[in-house]
Amino acid sequence: MTAATTGPVRVVGTGLLGASVGLALRGHGVDVVLSDPSRTALALARDVGAGRPAAADDDEPTLIVVAAPPDVAAQVVAVELAAHPDAVVTDLASVKGHVLDELRAVGADLTRYVGSHPMAGRERSGPSAAVPDLFLGRPWVIADSGSSRPESVLAVRSLAVDLGAVPVAMDASAHDEAVALVSHVPQVVASLAAARLQDADDAALGLAGQGLRDVTRIAASDPALWTSILAANAGAVHAVLVAVRSDLDAVIGALAGADAASGPEDVAPGLLATIAQTVARGNAGVARIPGKHGGAQREYTLVTVLVPDTPGELARLLTDVGEAGVNLEDLHLEHAAGRPVGMAQIAVLPGSAEHLEAELTARGWRLVS
Amino acid sequence: MTAATTGPVRVVGTGLLGASVGLALRGHGVDVVLSDPSRTALALARDVGAGRPAAADDDEPTLIVVAAPPDVAAQVVAVELAAHPDAVVTDLASVKGHVLDELRAVGADLTRYVGSHPMAGRERSGPSAAVPDLFLGRPWVIADSGSSRPESVLAVRSLAVDLGAVPVAMDASAHDEAVALVSHVPQVVASLAAARLQDADDAALGLAGQGLRDVTRIAASDPALWTSILAANAGAVHAVLVAVRSDLDAVIGALAGADAASGPEDVAPGLLATIAQTVARGNAGVARIPGKHGGAQREYTLVTVLVPDTPGELARLLTDVGEAGVNLEDLHLEHAAGRPVGMAQIAVLPGSAEHLEAELTARGWRLVS
Repeated sequence: MTAATTGPVRVVGTGLLGASVGLALRGHGVDVVLSDPSRTALALARDVGAGRPAAADDDEPTLIVVAAPPDVAAQVVAVELAAHPDAVVTDLASVKGHVLDELRAVGADLTRYVGSHPMAGRERSGPSAAVPDLFLGRPWVIADSGSSRPESVLAVRSLAVDLGAVPVAMDASAHDEAVALVSHVPQVVASLAAARLQDADDAALGLAGQGLRDVTRIAASDPALWTSILAANAGAVHAVLVAVRSDLDAVIGALAGADAASGPEDVAPGLLATIAQTVARGNAGVARIPGKHGGAQREYTLVTVLVPDTPGELARLLTDVGEAGVNLEDLHLEHAAGRPVGMAQIAVLPGSAEHLEAELTARGWRLVS
Repeated sequence: MTAATTGPVRVVGTGLLGASVGLALRGHGVDVVLSDPSRTALALARDVGAGRPAAADDDEPTLIVVAAPPDVAAQVVAVELAAHPDAVVTDLASVKGHVLDELRAVGADLTRYVGSHPMAGRERSGPSAAVPDLFLGRPWVIADSGSSRPESVLAVRSLAVDLGAVPVAMDASAHDEAVALVSHVPQVVASLAAARLQDADDAALGLAGQGLRDVTRIAASDPALWTSILAANAGAVHAVLVAVRSDLDAVIGALAGADAASGPEDVAPGLLATIAQTVARGNAGVARIPGKHGGAQREYTLVTVLVPDTPGELARLLTDVGEAGVNLEDLHLEHAAGRPVGMAQIAVLPGSAEHLEAELTARGWRLVS
C-alpha cells in the first residue's frame, strides 16, 4: 500500500507512540526524522528502525508529529510551529482541550495545527515496545483547531489512514468529554473498587470471580501517567464523577434504609425502586456500547465448554469449532478455582449454537450450556 | 466417583441452582426429591433429569437443599426444619446473615441448619439452564450457624465436594462482608459507570475500548435479582460504598482544584498526590486478587498476535502455539474497530515468550508484541 503521507516527517518524542508512528511510516518508505530530549530514547528508536536522528542539514519536514506527555505537548507543539513555518503539526496527547487552549494563549499559528488522538496503547512503554501495527483498526480522533486549514486536516487524516487507523473527526471539547466517559471515569471507578480490596482478608479474596477481575483489570494502570491524564481533563472528568456521586448517594441512602428495615415489606417506599433503577440504568448504558468491529451490538449465544488445562486442548477445541463450520465471534476463558480446568465461553450467532453444541458433544466435549 | 452424600436429598426450589444440584446428585445415583411452588418449574426440572417430584409416601430426606430467592430462603428453611425433624437443611442464598437472623428470630433448630453459598451462576436462569457441572471448581462457602452440629456441617461439606466444588468455611457475617467486597460493590460500581453512557453521543461511544467493556460487563445483570441481593446484604454493602464515596469525594475535590489551575505547577499542594494515590491504591488492591486456579497471582508475559476474522484462524494460531510446545496460560481476544481483524493476547510464562514469538513469526503470524 502506498502512503499518502510524503516525507520528511519529523517525530518529536520517541516513546511507544512516536516510535510506532516512525516504524509504520518507514514501512511505507517515508523519510522519518526523530527528535527526543532523551538521548537514550532517541538512539533506541533509531535502533528499532523508527527513523534517523535529526541533523542540521535536514530538508524541512512537511508534517510534524508531537508524541510528548500531555502536560508538555502544547509547549512542544508551539516550538515546532514556530521553528518550521511551512509544516503541519499534530500532537497525539490523550487530552485535546488544554493543548489547544495553551496554543491559543501563546498565539500559535492554529491554521497549521490539528490535534489528534489515536486510541491505541500497550501494557509496555518506551521505544523498544514500538510496533508498526499499533494503530491498526483503532479509532484515531482528528480534532480541527477551529482555524485549521483543510489541507492541514487532510495531512493528519492521511497519516491516520496510512497507519491503518480509522479517522474520527471530533472537536477538542467533544473528544475530551467522550474520553472522560469511555476511558477516564471507568479508570477512576475501577481504581476505587480495587482500592477496597487492599485490606480484605485472603479468605474474602478467595471468593473473587470473573466479575471482579473484569471490573478491576484496568486498575493496574500507571499512577503517574493517569495523574497527568486526569489532571489535564479535570473539567470533563469532574462533571461525570459528580453525576456518579449523585447516583452513588442515592444507592447509599437506599441501602441505609434497607439495612434498618426488618424485611423487604418494611423498607420505606421508593428505596428498593432506587436500587433497581440504578441497575436498570446500567443495563441501558452497557447496551449502548458498540459491539465487535465497531458495528451495532449484536446478540450472540454463548456455548460454554469445559477445557482441561493441558497444552493443546484449547487449540483442539477451536479446531473442532472450525470443523463444525461455525464462526467463533468471540471467546472468553474463565478458570476454575483450585482445579486444572477452565471454561471456554464461545460466542456464536444464535442460529449456530444448537448445531455447535451437537457437534462438540459428539466429539466428546463436556458442555456447561 | 462415589458420592459421600446419601439420599434421599430433597431439593426445594428447582431454578438454575436447585435443578443443577439435582442433576449432579442424580449423576452420582443419589435419590433426589424435588419441590417447587411453580408446577412448571417442577415439571421442567424433572424433565431435565434433576430428580422426581415429592410424593406422599417418600422416605424422609437426610439432607434438604433450599434453593429459593434470598428474600424467602429463611422462611422456607424454617418450614423444612420443622417438617423434617431428622434432616440437615442448607440454603444456597447469596447472602447468609439475614437468613440466619430470621431463623434465630423464629426459634428454628440451628443444630441442623448450615448456610451455604456456591459461587456459581450462569447468564441464563431456570431449570432448563441447569447443568451438573455448574459447581465444578467453584468456591462453595459453608457457613456454620454457630450452633450447627459437626455432622450437619459435614453433610453440607460433602454435598459441595460431591458436586465438584471447593468448600470454604466462613461464618455468615464474614461471608456477607466478603461478597460485598468481591461481588456486590463491583456490581454497583459497574452499574454506576455504565449508567453514564445512557445519554452519551454515538461518536463518544465509538471510542470505547476493551477497558470500558471490561469495567461495565456485569452491568448487564438483572435488576430484580440484584435488588434482592443488595437489599439482603444492605449493611455490608453500605459500609464499603461509604468508603468508596469517601475516596470519590477526594478525587472530585482534587479534580475541581486541577480544573481551576492554569497548569500542573499551579495546582494546590496535595491535589495531584490525591489522584496518584487513588490510582496507586487501586494497583495495590488489584494485585491482591488471586490468579488463575485460586493460586497466588503470577506474572505472565503477553504475546499479542493479529488474527484475521475468518473461520479457523484462531484455531490455527492456537494449534501453532501448541506445536511450539508452549502452554497458553490465558487468552484474551480484542477486536479492532471497523476492521475484520482481531488481536489475540496470549499469556505465557515469561521464559516462554521469546521462543513463542520466534516460532509464531516463523509460521507467518504478525505480532504486535
